[in-house]
Amino acid sequence: MRVAVLGVGLIGGSVALAARGRAGATVVGYDPSPAALDAALRRGALDETCEDPAEAVQGADAVFAAAPVSALAALVAAALAAAPAECVVTDVGSTKRAVAAAHEDPRFVGGHPLAGAETAGVDHARADLFEGAVWYLTPGARTSGELYERLHRLLVALGARPTAIDPDAHDRMLAAVSHLPHVLANVLVAQAASALGGERLPAVGPSFRDATRVAGAPSAIWTDIYMSNRDALIAQLDGAIERLRGVRASLQAADGHAVTAWNEAAAAGRRRLLERDLAGAETFELRVSVPNRPGVVARLALELGDAGVNIADMALYPAADRSTGVIALWIAGEDASARAQTLIEELGFPVARP
Amino acid sequence: MRVAVLGVGLIGGSVALAARGRAGATVVGYDPSPAALDAALRRGALDETCEDPAEAVQGADAVFAAAPVSALAALVAAALAAAPAECVVTDVGSTKRAVAAAHEDPRFVGGHPLAGAETAGVDHARADLFEGAVWYLTPGARTSGELYERLHRLLVALGARPTAIDPDAHDRMLAAVSHLPHVLANVLVAQAASALGGERLPAVGPSFRDATRVAGAPSAIWTDIYMSNRDALIAQLDGAIERLRGVRASLQAADGHAVTAWNEAAAAGRRRLLERDLAGAETFELRVSVPNRPGVVARLALELGDAGVNIADMALYPAADRSTGVIALWIAGEDASARAQTLIEELGFPVARP
Repeated sequence: MRVAVLGVGLIGGSVALAARGRAGATVVGYDPSPAALDAALRRGALDETCEDPAEAVQGADAVFAAAPVSALAALVAAALAAAPAECVVTDVGSTKRAVAAAHEDPRFVGGHPLAGAETAGVDHARADLFEGAVWYLTPGARTSGELYERLHRLLVALGARPTAIDPDAHDRMLAAVSHLPHVLANVLVAQAASALGGERLPAVGPSFRDATRVAGAPSAIWTDIYMSNRDALIAQLDGAIERLRGVRASLQAADGHAVTAWNEAAAAGRRRLLERDLAGAETFELRVSVPNRPGVVARLALELGDAGVNIADMALYPAADRSTGVIALWIAGEDASARAQTLIEELGFPVARP
Repeated sequence: MRVAVLGVGLIGGSVALAARGRAGATVVGYDPSPAALDAALRRGALDETCEDPAEAVQGADAVFAAAPVSALAALVAAALAAAPAECVVTDVGSTKRAVAAAHEDPRFVGGHPLAGAETAGVDHARADLFEGAVWYLTPGARTSGELYERLHRLLVALGARPTAIDPDAHDRMLAAVSHLPHVLANVLVAQAASALGGERLPAVGPSFRDATRVAGAPSAIWTDIYMSNRDALIAQLDGAIERLRGVRASLQAADGHAVTAWNEAAAAGRRRLLERDLAGAETFELRVSVPNRPGVVARLALELGDAGVNIADMALYPAADRSTGVIALWIAGEDASARAQTLIEELGFPVARP
């Protein structure tokens, strides 16, 4: 397999290292910074370097566009313009609506690995960065099933857990669980700096450090993320302001019972949100008979993703005449696999358990 | 030395373990819960158990009141009513104005160790819980210098770094660096729970976990803290709401430059707030000649605490007639010790460097 990585920073560099080291792929890379490209080559992330995206995608089976969010639209367009007909093109941006809307090409699948670090740059790239990490994919109605499957399996080979999701749902959720926390971390820093009047923070235990770990995340990445998800983030800010006003009113009224109820709700909420996956659940295989047309695999993947069912692995077996085929899905957990079977049958596709 | 611990939960139990194990003290304990008292005895935290606070403080050299904030006023009053004339009484509450105002006794020094855990109860108590932790002390104008020194040295023996601070400044600062972070963690959980509509949180990396680690902290402790610091916390909430409105306006106006500037300010603020102490700085001794009257030691400690100078250790040497004395202070770092010398001389006390 030949993989092209466009942009070899922390994420692109880690994709390249993992694709070479774990998936046995030949990896070619492009980056607007010659220094970054050299560094990636020195680190063993690349087999070859290229001078532009068009050159890099020649003969590629899969292309990863790994640039800041504001540069993705142009980079993905350049990749699609030059990539072969049977090449899957994806990106790694933290917001998905804009890029999904811009590229309704059968070869394009939006993506977002939930991995990263407080560091940036290829020097911090690691082949195991995606080990166990959810990697969101936002297939569109026109996405090719075969290319989606290829990407899914490649991501599993990188160690990730690909999960299909609708771009709107993705951006709304990320606004709540990632972008709002970043904003609040910045607010905490500003409030503390103002309260301390220029003094260094006293040793306040790990809680302030934990709460502000992501404060002032790199602007080169984060301004784009905030701006590309403005509407969803504004809705989250409005919600947060409303909740802060609510606590304020309870405090103002010296209503200890209301404060306790609010705090207990948070305790219960956190427990529910962070309930652990059933670790090490057995994996069950489902074989789904499907017509071989664009969008079917995407529809299945989205249906299961929406229901919180994780596809541990998948394989596509087209019939000889390519008019129909079988998708094998491996689902962790007996309950989840039963749920998956029901959902898929309700979509009208026969399911067998081998 | 005989130490009485009133309330043997996580903090009281850890004080008891450290006082026995590290300071060689005899430790007696009282707790309204017989089960907690038994558990503390079994864990080796206590030499003796007592049936009420008055019995526990008989013959004590130091008393720690370790109850939830709303129970502290009564517990400290009971301790002061029964404690010997030469006994120092302190508490470990997370807010300090109320308890400081209620007890203007020469034997009382308010206290607040910046230690704790996500756990509670004596089963989680540890002799090293205070190792390296700042332990705020709020001596009053009437506080005895000898008793303050005794407490300071005892806390150093427990592994802590006692730091004097004004009760108002303490509560304002803690509102910003501890109570507001707890409120925002609760808000984040509520927003995420609402965005996810009852679904479990997807694996979003450690950032959401970090940001919400303190969400829903035990209401038995935290409702008291919020309520006892209502005014300072309301001011912080107003500040946070104002800042959220500011970011919202920049997003609404699609003003990427403003978003970047705001984010860069947070990055710079966090760097400044979290600058590390100069590790392993040399310690310098200052010998201060002082009149032997209440309030002098407190004044010195507050002056240095306000200036951010940490007193690594201290010792009091009264003259034979007890009308004057010498306080030896050990200060880490040449710069800090020079600053301390200037500040103390400006208060009118002669300083020698032995």
